[in-house]
Amino acid sequence: MGARQLTDDERRDWLRLMMSENVGPATFRMLIERYGNAGDALNALPELSARGGLKRRIRICGQDRAEAHLARAAALSARFVALGEADYPSLLEHIDDAPPMICIKGDETVLSRPCFAIVGARNASALGRKLARSVARDLGRAGFTIVSGLARGVDTAAHEASVDVATAAVLAGGIDNIYPPENDELHRAIGERGLLVSEHPPGTRPQAQNFSRRNRVISGMSYGALIVEAAKRSGSLITARMALEQNREVFAVPGSPLDPRAEGTNRLIRDGAILARSADDILEVIAPILDQTAAGTAPHLYEPPPAETPASNIEPTQDARAHLMELVGSSPSNIDDLIRESGLDAGTVVNLLLELELAGTIERLPGHKVALAVSD
Amino acid sequence: MGARQLTDDERRDWLRLMMSENVGPATFRMLIERYGNAGDALNALPELSARGGLKRRIRICGQDRAEAHLARAAALSARFVALGEADYPSLLEHIDDAPPMICIKGDETVLSRPCFAIVGARNASALGRKLARSVARDLGRAGFTIVSGLARGVDTAAHEASVDVATAAVLAGGIDNIYPPENDELHRAIGERGLLVSEHPPGTRPQAQNFSRRNRVISGMSYGALIVEAAKRSGSLITARMALEQNREVFAVPGSPLDPRAEGTNRLIRDGAILARSADDILEVIAPILDQTAAGTAPHLYEPPPAETPASNIEPTQDARAHLMELVGSSPSNIDDLIRESGLDAGTVVNLLLELELAGTIERLPGHKVALAVSD
Repeated sequence: MGARQLTDDERRDWLRLMMSENVGPATFRMLIERYGNAGDALNALPELSARGGLKRRIRICGQDRAEAHLARAAALSARFVALGEADYPSLLEHIDDAPPMICIKGDETVLSRPCFAIVGARNASALGRKLARSVARDLGRAGFTIVSGLARGVDTAAHEASVDVATAAVLAGGIDNIYPPENDELHRAIGERGLLVSEHPPGTRPQAQNFSRRNRVISGMSYGALIVEAAKRSGSLITARMALEQNREVFAVPGSPLDPRAEGTNRLIRDGAILARSADDILEVIAPILDQTAAGTAPHLYEPPPAETPASNIEPTQDARAHLMELVGSSPSNIDDLIRESGLDAGTVVNLLLELELAGTIERLPGHKVALAVSD
Repeated sequence: MGARQLTDDERRDWLRLMMSENVGPATFRMLIERYGNAGDALNALPELSARGGLKRRIRICGQDRAEAHLARAAALSARFVALGEADYPSLLEHIDDAPPMICIKGDETVLSRPCFAIVGARNASALGRKLARSVARDLGRAGFTIVSGLARGVDTAAHEASVDVATAAVLAGGIDNIYPPENDELHRAIGERGLLVSEHPPGTRPQAQNFSRRNRVISGMSYGALIVEAAKRSGSLITARMALEQNREVFAVPGSPLDPRAEGTNRLIRDGAILARSADDILEVIAPILDQTAAGTAPHLYEPPPAETPASNIEPTQDARAHLMELVGSSPSNIDDLIRESGLDAGTVVNLLLELELAGTIERLPGHKVALAVSD
């Protein structure tokens, strides 16, 4: 994406489009590419979703509602930044399902520093928190912004140790949603001296699925992620997985195999994550990548999302739609496979999928895949 | 080496040759290859060492002394086994500087099982000892003999957990040298139900340099080695290094970077050792190697020592000796490099080195290298 600067009206329309029914990040991107701007895309939503099979009118976010969100953000001294604009985190632009807009509050200059994520167990041990603090402090001194999720335990330790240098907290709810309650003061401090980041409007209360989607933003903004203590199945491991999918470097702190809080991190190291004992272990790996980035030769961080075939303007037939629907199941199908198996031309498949997604019939999944949507 | 079965006289002569002045494992092997048997090699020692520059007569282990060692071993129900004989540990035969003979006491059937080494810190934590016990017990059940060094801490825990299944203790002193004193009972139990192993005759008190040489036997007997807790510079890391040089699999138990007892193991993992949390992590890697070994396709465990150029029968000139000596310094030189740089033929260089080593002028070092001997 080139440098973009939205007008007030465009910003409102971007927010409306992002908050309209069944519009995910990939669909948003396709709609902007196809219609050139959010206003025309909004106008097209009813017809597209009807063609996809939606029997009622698609729910579009109204102007008033969008303006209320913008006003509420302004009242909180926060603002919405669109993908491609100057203050949008540069690495985040390039992930597969980058949020079309994020809401930020605080000192956006922290985004001009390279970011590094430190996450880990909520019930971290004293040693784990101590280690998170020391790595956050040392990476901060080395010029990094520390990104984390403001959760209890490791996240809190990482933010505390970096808030006076450079820290960014990515929240699963709106930027005014304070959780856990005891982080009230830290939340306020980050909103002034660091940066609060959310892909949801202020006032949003976090829902279960938001947490794992939030983790993709934490890793997506960052050159790498350190996992400090993580039980077997834990949110931090989701961040690690997201980071790997995004070609970020994953580091993990080892621990005794008899300590359940090290199960996740030891497993990560066995699976190829880099064992990290200190900031030095991280800098050794990350410093050369920063140099490549400065020289414009770190393509793995800037890989564009898999090339989408541009939607064609030929309206697909009912037959083509029925044929494609037979191929889409409840387990994920790769879009390229669908194009090959259906025998339809690529533009037609892309059009059909766009319509089916807007109708809520299918959903997009990571890795250029789709599946039948799970009905609530 | 093929299957060898020494007569009583041959065994006595092997012991004499092994215990004679300046006869290391590599020189022993060369002498046996050159003279066909230990008796003729013993007879040649005075002339060879004189040609190498020794001004006095080389000290040869006398018949009486060797017979006394054999008798003492027999009185302890121990015996000497020569490299190539049936009860010599099969993997150990193939290491670079395999002991020509070992003294064993106990149940030698433990050597018919595949061996695995478990070593670690003397001042191990309770968790470290617990982990050593659990891995030793589980590998024992899986059919392995656990090899260790009967030191305090991890070694003791590993032996204790495997003595009733299959354990072998490799000692830095003679097999009757009990250390640490509190392992008196364990030492006795291993000498009955397990196997005590030493490359020294009974009565030998361990000296500092013996400990690291002992570690090469621990790893050399084993398909792999697990290091459980190890400080930065510790004997266990020597075992790990020996194991790597011998192409054995090295495993390490991770620990908190803030625990000094994990410094060595975390560093090993960063350097490529396999992170091990349990016996399963080890079996996953070792089981396929056992299969290859059974099928005779695990060449890395059976690599013969670097091919020695056979010593020629042409007596080297004084000039050639002086020329070679100019090239040998106090830092290690590779023997192949010496051959190339000297312009001498390979057989001559090998002859000269054999004589110089027997004269105590040079010493052999791991990796087919030599250096000027450090005078006492």
